Amino acid sequence: MKLDSLLKERFGDTDVGSEIYALAASIYPICRSITGDGVRKTLNHLRQHIDLNVNEVRTGTRVFDWRVPREWNIRDAFIKNAAGEKVVDFNVCNLHVLNYSSPIHAKLSLAELKEHIFTLPEQPDLIPYRTSYYADRWGFCMAHDRLVELPEGIYEVLIDADLTDGYLSYGEYLHRGETREEFLLSAHVCHPALANDNCSGLALLTYLAKLLAGRKTHYSYRFLFAPGTIGAITWLARNEHLVGRIKHGLIISCVGDGGGPNYKRSRRGDAVIDRVMTHILQHAGPNSAVCDFVPYGYDERQYCSPGFNLPVGLFQRSRFGTFPEYHTSGDNLDFIKPEHLAESLRVVWAALNIVEGDCRPRGTKPKCEPQLGRRGLYSSLGGDKEAPANNMALLWVLNLADGVHSLLDMAERANLPFQVIADAAITLNGRAFGIGLF
Amino acid sequence: MKLDSLLKERFGDTDVGSEIYALAASIYPICRSITGDGVRKTLNHLRQHIDLNVNEVRTGTRVFDWRVPREWNIRDAFIKNAAGEKVVDFNVCNLHVLNYSSPIHAKLSLAELKEHIFTLPEQPDLIPYRTSYYADRWGFCMAHDRLVELPEGIYEVLIDADLTDGYLSYGEYLHRGETREEFLLSAHVCHPALANDNCSGLALLTYLAKLLAGRKTHYSYRFLFAPGTIGAITWLARNEHLVGRIKHGLIISCVGDGGGPNYKRSRRGDAVIDRVMTHILQHAGPNSAVCDFVPYGYDERQYCSPGFNLPVGLFQRSRFGTFPEYHTSGDNLDFIKPEHLAESLRVVWAALNIVEGDCRPRGTKPKCEPQLGRRGLYSSLGGDKEAPANNMALLWVLNLADGVHSLLDMAERANLPFQVIADAAITLNGRAFGIGLF
Amino acid sequence: MKLDSLLKERFGDTDVGSEIYALAASIYPICRSITGDGVRKTLNHLRQHIDLNVNEVRTGTRVFDWRVPREWNIRDAFIKNAAGEKVVDFNVCNLHVLNYSSPIHAKLSLAELKEHIFTLPEQPDLIPYRTSYYADRWGFCMAHDRLVELPEGIYEVLIDADLTDGYLSYGEYLHRGETREEFLLSAHVCHPALANDNCSGLALLTYLAKLLAGRKTHYSYRFLFAPGTIGAITWLARNEHLVGRIKHGLIISCVGDGGGPNYKRSRRGDAVIDRVMTHILQHAGPNSAVCDFVPYGYDERQYCSPGFNLPVGLFQRSRFGTFPEYHTSGDNLDFIKPEHLAESLRVVWAALNIVEGDCRPRGTKPKCEPQLGRRGLYSSLGGDKEAPANNMALLWVLNLADGVHSLLDMAERANLPFQVIADAAITLNGRAFGIGLF
Repeated sequence: MKLDSLLKERFGDTDVGSEIYALAASIYPICRSITGDGVRKTLNHLRQHIDLNVNEVRTGTRVFDWRVPREWNIRDAFIKNAAGEKVVDFNVCNLHVLNYSSPIHAKLSLAELKEHIFTLPEQPDLIPYRTSYYADRWGFCMAHDRLVELPEGIYEVLIDADLTDGYLSYGEYLHRGETREEFLLSAHVCHPALANDNCSGLALLTYLAKLLAGRKTHYSYRFLFAPGTIGAITWLARNEHLVGRIKHGLIISCVGDGGGPNYKRSRRGDAVIDRVMTHILQHAGPNSAVCDFVPYGYDERQYCSPGFNLPVGLFQRSRFGTFPEYHTSGDNLDFIKPEHLAESLRVVWAALNIVEGDCRPRGTKPKCEPQLGRRGLYSSLGGDKEAPANNMALLWVLNLADGVHSLLDMAERANLPFQVIADAAITLNGRAFGIGLF
Repeated sequence: MKLDSLLKERFGDTDVGSEIYALAASIYPICRSITGDGVRKTLNHLRQHIDLNVNEVRTGTRVFDWRVPREWNIRDAFIKNAAGEKVVDFNVCNLHVLNYSSPIHAKLSLAELKEHIFTLPEQPDLIPYRTSYYADRWGFCMAHDRLVELPEGIYEVLIDADLTDGYLSYGEYLHRGETREEFLLSAHVCHPALANDNCSGLALLTYLAKLLAGRKTHYSYRFLFAPGTIGAITWLARNEHLVGRIKHGLIISCVGDGGGPNYKRSRRGDAVIDRVMTHILQHAGPNSAVCDFVPYGYDERQYCSPGFNLPVGLFQRSRFGTFPEYHTSGDNLDFIKPEHLAESLRVVWAALNIVEGDCRPRGTKPKCEPQLGRRGLYSSLGGDKEAPANNMALLWVLNLADGVHSLLDMAERANLPFQVIADAAITLNGRAFGIGLF
Repeated sequence: MKLDSLLKERFGDTDVGSEIYALAASIYPICRSITGDGVRKTLNHLRQHIDLNVNEVRTGTRVFDWRVPREWNIRDAFIKNAAGEKVVDFNVCNLHVLNYSSPIHAKLSLAELKEHIFTLPEQPDLIPYRTSYYADRWGFCMAHDRLVELPEGIYEVLIDADLTDGYLSYGEYLHRGETREEFLLSAHVCHPALANDNCSGLALLTYLAKLLAGRKTHYSYRFLFAPGTIGAITWLARNEHLVGRIKHGLIISCVGDGGGPNYKRSRRGDAVIDRVMTHILQHAGPNSAVCDFVPYGYDERQYCSPGFNLPVGLFQRSRFGTFPEYHTSGDNLDFIKPEHLAESLRVVWAALNIVEGDCRPRGTKPKCEPQLGRRGLYSSLGGDKEAPANNMALLWVLNLADGVHSLLDMAERANLPFQVIADAAITLNGRAFGIGLF
């Protein structure tokens, strides 16, 4: 499963990063929330690429300690000044409305209006992203610079939205592998116009699913596109019987910017996915980093709650909360780039590659080194100081192919990328060393 | 058991540091040794605060490889010059006499005298503290500056002391808890006028015992005020049957100066008390440090001998042997301060608090996070970058309340002070989460 | 087994480093290869010191995945210019011939000749050492400076050598100890005139064997002087039944230069020999270093192959491949020094000393410290800040003599040299503490 040849086969000369970017861009303008038509529209976009199941769960359904909330749909919103000019317009940027806001239509003084306005005084040109899911509240978000320009006077505010009984929607796609053991890949679908967080993750996972389609795999790959927190809780509540199948998992968000890459370990800390991602990021450049689990973040919070404790980590480029554009209008289509999306895809693919390809080969000639030279695998000219580097992967595989060490163990101990070790194992196997690979 | 409210209840507005300091100052002038009336007088001072048992063990009693030594009592000592003027006077500073010195009354030349005089040429204005317990020897200690001023001539020396069969004395106080499991707290009582080493420790433990009096505790707290080495050996020899009850222990000395605080681990290295003190000192400021056990120091040497191997560490501010005032007349009442004594009390109290309060709660809602917002424990306004910090302790407790992790485990993993975690656990318990705490 | 007194006993005032150097110098001029008379001559030199068994294994014998190669013997070799002058002469330096070269006698143009010449353009004044064991090939090695001086013209080349069926030779010497448990010591014998790599190792092991002769030891010490790779493989193939006896092992090479010392761990990483060598090098000066096993290097590659996985590490001064003289004519008799050889002997001796002397003593007085002062082992004068350092080794042994900790454990934990701990244990044993040593 070499990614480059697969990409060539599927997309020809088209750059996959640009493809992912285009999909992210197409869903960016949609006003998503934890429920409502924004989510449905988004899932319909993804459906043009993969055969997604859309699940609808009725408002009020009990999901563990929670209940599925009402459905929110919004048509329009603005603030007009005394002259009737729109000083804030939902149609320009859907972050302007407090997400999941109650409806309102009123005339207010500036002072009254300000009680319902959120700004970022320290980033005065950016519109913040704020939500109010679990308290009835109406509000607007805007650039602080614009707020301070507003003159005294009477303002007309409109939020033409409904909060009604309905459904929570989420998308699910299963790539069936040879076994029922699952690799869970999940991206949250609830944020409105934030490109990195998480149009990038939704688009990347869609393309990953597309690449897997028709490929034979050991694991089954389950893709989830669900609202944050309540979506994961809902899925877990409805699929408790499946949870034991999940052997590895990654939450994917913020994968289009130029930071990182970063991995946050699962609660277990030493799950296979933790070792796999640590190994990949170790070879992924100087800015990559791995951090321990903390019970704050994305949906790993739910998958790693003590009653589940699943081997699910979080993959990101920049870490949430650490970049200035986070949860603001600065997280727009200029902030994500095709090359970062492509590199993120490579990282996730590398993880799949390792869990699919890892094994514990056992050499058939464990006593002393086999004679590599005779088989054309070793220079016949001795004494050269430079020679060994070329042979190290072969020597490591031969030395550790004892049925105990996995290829990942070897890669870690040799400090070589997994693929270099796997290729050496394949070479040895091909030359009749019979190391029992795959 | 919040210390501040307890201090308020017991001492009103009086600062406990000043109280401890006053007790240390009251025992400072007494000339203590490993045996004799100096120890008895000191224990009598402590008895004004707590109901101390004083034990007397006869000279010659076998205690493991040792015998209880003779009792030493001193009445007066001086060196007089040819003019009959006292150039060294025991009544000015009891460090002047080699501790446990044989008696002497003689006239000597300066050269003969010098063979019995100990000074510190590198700290010429300070009187050293020296002892000779196990070899018959007489001697004086004095400032090197004073020694070099002495003219040739005949000197009269007097050490009016007895070394006679008698008793070794030590004090013991037991605060009975709900169980017979014990926490041992021990301070050495054998040093003469050295304020930090160990009037500070004696006074601190006395006040700690006083604070515990009347309080319900899980552990029984055993306080020992015994001469160094031979006192600990004597106690262990007479109480071997109790040793199995000791679950935690701290040797307390040098707790009044401005250094550290420092903790030296028990021989085990991973005893609960080692983890507890490491945790506390990690949150105690930049100068705090924890070091491994070495078989030199205070009475942890005996408690950690291989036949006992008890979970007993050493708590100090500055480490013995590392501060210039150590074992000199510089270790006087100016060297210790009420605020340092109070801070030391806080550290020891924090240790008691952890061993008393630690438990392994099990959440009743382990699957996914409970809905904190509905219970007023989580901001209803989402998207704010600053929000999580306030909730981290609650989230950590919920995430780790699996019946396996203790509150201390949680505090270590969350890198939050134990009390913050314990308070979060209490909050969750109080809001009907039923995490099975305490 | 104190080395200094043993050296005195055996060699009087002669410096052992000079003795080892003289032996290394005497074998330096011999043209060795993996087979042939060069090896036999070398073993005969060593035989003047120890009663070496020389084993001869017939060409073509199967040894695991390999076959014993033909025997190579060389009489003469040169390159003559048009004037009949030797521009390259085997008799001046045996590195000039590609080791194991096929015979040749021909006249060639300079261009044709150059295809068979190896130089080091970046070290233009040095002759490289190159081999061609497993491909039929003839060639010469020479200084790059000399090569570029050669004028166009016709050259006569002669390599008067045979490659014929014969034998592979290796030397073996067994010092029998009280048990059949073995310590393997091995040096490769196949390199021609390279002083450090490995005349130094051959000479050092010969003197080590000589020193052991007549000494009572716990372990049996097996010395191997065999060609690299094929020699180790041959020995292992013929002695599989002995392999289980090998409890510790060291490959010895490059022990005469001024670098390091260095130790490379066995594949196990935590074998006793790994701990022993790590401990010794920790106390051996600032340039010493220990590195993990990698499956490239000397014969540890074979001993640590997965089917054997023996506790065999590599001891060197400078690491192979890292010093500029490595595998060149710069590795000559000026490059090695008697003092480095002597120091290397000390390191290896120290390792023997530890494995021979280590034990898990159990004190007879485990409860509290025994009274050292009464036995003259502790200053009777207390209070001195400097006193403890002198007693630390005694205190550590008493504290850890619980039948669980070995002397090496103690030395590691105390951060004191093994010998200091062992001497303290002997002192305590001698003073009737009965700590059950040896």
